[in-house]
Amino acid sequence: MATGKTIYIAVVGVGGVGQAFLGQLAQLQQRLAKRSPPTHLNLILVRRSTKQLSSPGYKPINIGTVLAELDKVTTPFPQLIESVNYLAKAHGKVVLVDNTSDLDFATVYPLVLSKGISIVTPNKKAFSHTFSLWTRIFEAAANGSGPEGNGFVFHESSVGAGLPVLSTLNELVETGDEVTKIEGVFSGTMSFLFNSFQPVAGGGGTFAAEVKKAKDLGYTEPDPRDDLNGLDVARKLTILARIAGLPVESPTSFPVQSLIPAELEDCKSGDEFLARLPEFDNRMDEVKAKAAKEGKVVRFVGSINVGSKEVKVGLESFDKSHPIAALKGSDNIISFYTKRYGSNPLIIQGAGAGGEVTAMGVTGDLIKVIKLLR
Amino acid sequence: MATGKTIYIAVVGVGGVGQAFLGQLAQLQQRLAKRSPPTHLNLILVRRSTKQLSSPGYKPINIGTVLAELDKVTTPFPQLIESVNYLAKAHGKVVLVDNTSDLDFATVYPLVLSKGISIVTPNKKAFSHTFSLWTRIFEAAANGSGPEGNGFVFHESSVGAGLPVLSTLNELVETGDEVTKIEGVFSGTMSFLFNSFQPVAGGGGTFAAEVKKAKDLGYTEPDPRDDLNGLDVARKLTILARIAGLPVESPTSFPVQSLIPAELEDCKSGDEFLARLPEFDNRMDEVKAKAAKEGKVVRFVGSINVGSKEVKVGLESFDKSHPIAALKGSDNIISFYTKRYGSNPLIIQGAGAGGEVTAMGVTGDLIKVIKLLR
Repeated sequence: MATGKTIYIAVVGVGGVGQAFLGQLAQLQQRLAKRSPPTHLNLILVRRSTKQLSSPGYKPINIGTVLAELDKVTTPFPQLIESVNYLAKAHGKVVLVDNTSDLDFATVYPLVLSKGISIVTPNKKAFSHTFSLWTRIFEAAANGSGPEGNGFVFHESSVGAGLPVLSTLNELVETGDEVTKIEGVFSGTMSFLFNSFQPVAGGGGTFAAEVKKAKDLGYTEPDPRDDLNGLDVARKLTILARIAGLPVESPTSFPVQSLIPAELEDCKSGDEFLARLPEFDNRMDEVKAKAAKEGKVVRFVGSINVGSKEVKVGLESFDKSHPIAALKGSDNIISFYTKRYGSNPLIIQGAGAGGEVTAMGVTGDLIKVIKLLR
Repeated sequence: MATGKTIYIAVVGVGGVGQAFLGQLAQLQQRLAKRSPPTHLNLILVRRSTKQLSSPGYKPINIGTVLAELDKVTTPFPQLIESVNYLAKAHGKVVLVDNTSDLDFATVYPLVLSKGISIVTPNKKAFSHTFSLWTRIFEAAANGSGPEGNGFVFHESSVGAGLPVLSTLNELVETGDEVTKIEGVFSGTMSFLFNSFQPVAGGGGTFAAEVKKAKDLGYTEPDPRDDLNGLDVARKLTILARIAGLPVESPTSFPVQSLIPAELEDCKSGDEFLARLPEFDNRMDEVKAKAAKEGKVVRFVGSINVGSKEVKVGLESFDKSHPIAALKGSDNIISFYTKRYGSNPLIIQGAGAGGEVTAMGVTGDLIKVIKLLR
């Protein structure tokens, strides 16, 4: 009778996504423990911005009470590298779950992977920073070109949250299909904003009013300029383009349309920005009217033309019958045009943001790693 | 310097999908051979209905010329079980690619898996036959509850061809989401037929005329009754329902609406059926008119209500703005309603039939098995 295997789990970041992930981890832990032979998922480290809890003898920490325990920690906050060394010394396979959006952490991914520690993460910055960091990460990963003893890395939730976007693109590429174009709405915020600003059925408020509404409903970042500058979408496009084979240098190395009026770029606060945004409503009204005149609606999209190596992010108009125009709520939509799929693309659509669905992509990646680890 | 690994491949069935698969296998073989360390995919057996070619010393057979070589075979056609025994004796991991829709073959899957041979296949019948066969297959598979030395089994292309339908549903279930409902258009033939019979923009021919057109364009089986009886869709629903946790006994254990008029069930040939079908056009005209009166269009769909354990296949009407109504050409669409995704489902859409995209699902499954085999 086999006694099963034990996998050690470290979780960094316990905000919205991190907390949802811990809930899913507890469920998965129970399910895998019941299998024959069982797989034991032992949580051995939890870290947030200023506190860290780790288990001295690599004994499992109770997931249900870990956040309360973390609050009580008074021991000094260790350097990240010390924690990585602690994980590397565990007698078994370790998976590090990075639920932060912290670039500093991402820069040590290659080191972490080379120590045999696997990484699953929704961290967009890690995979959209310089092309050199991307290359170093996948040169170190066992599922890249790294040696077999190294860790695996998966980051499904870095684009479209739990939607199967990266796994689908990877499979298209690996099975030898030729991806010609990727197009879609990659931001839940932008989706909600434009579905309200210019609904297919007509109507919709002014742009500034819709931005305020989206903020009040919690659909934007605390400072809505962080959505309106287009950088979030540009980061996702960078990741997709790289998987499709384009060596995109960074999210600022291709045209990205910012919806922040140039005159408001120097606003000192999000509140000041929101207060002054209505002054520029006439510009967006013009965009809306122009689309309407052609029987179209305007949407904020990203596209990658693989053949011409053109990546861009910004406003475009779509026929009302186009799937991008018909999107609802804050859904994302991603269309893959390929040689095998011909004129009708492979389309994936659904919620692309939110704690539970983002955590689900991370949990799904963890399951993939568990299957690969022996 | 590692010398890499060798995986032996056996291919059964070299029709449309089988030939497309061989093309993709040749490409994959080249790509993996270049890796460091390399993975060698050695084709050692090819079998079709009456002929089989195998390599006596498990030496690789040239993929590029294998079909011509197979034609020349004059040796006696061995029993399937003899071939399985030959594969089981290979000194290494073996993957059997079943590109047939042969139920006889499927009944030996549990035996094949127990011998450590993995299976990848688009064979719908294998997974929609009795629930007992389904259970025995997954009790024998290493990715089911079978022991670690057994083979893995993947069958992505049994539903929606290469679209990531089964992998997505499996991940929803494995990560602990609660799937409440699955709904969609699961047949390229039915999609094409109804998108032409009642386009969203209005118009469309009589039902009999559209069936004839679909047949002439190659969108139906040689005998269109094999599409119109709904069994193909019922098989796919059976597979999805089982993954979602419902122990559906067979594709005939739930309501399936056949579009073959009762009066024509005894037609001796597909030609006789097609010649007489116009006599019943008034019935389908009524269905169309009723939907149109409500501002809707009629579509042939399947649905699974997980909570009420209700599975059904048949005609339903949809608002013109519904994604199912707006489908194009012969595309499939599959909507997963889950607790985490809330009111807007996770949607997957695209070509769900055709040699290349079906083979792509098989090749994708082969890549998954290769990653899991050590």
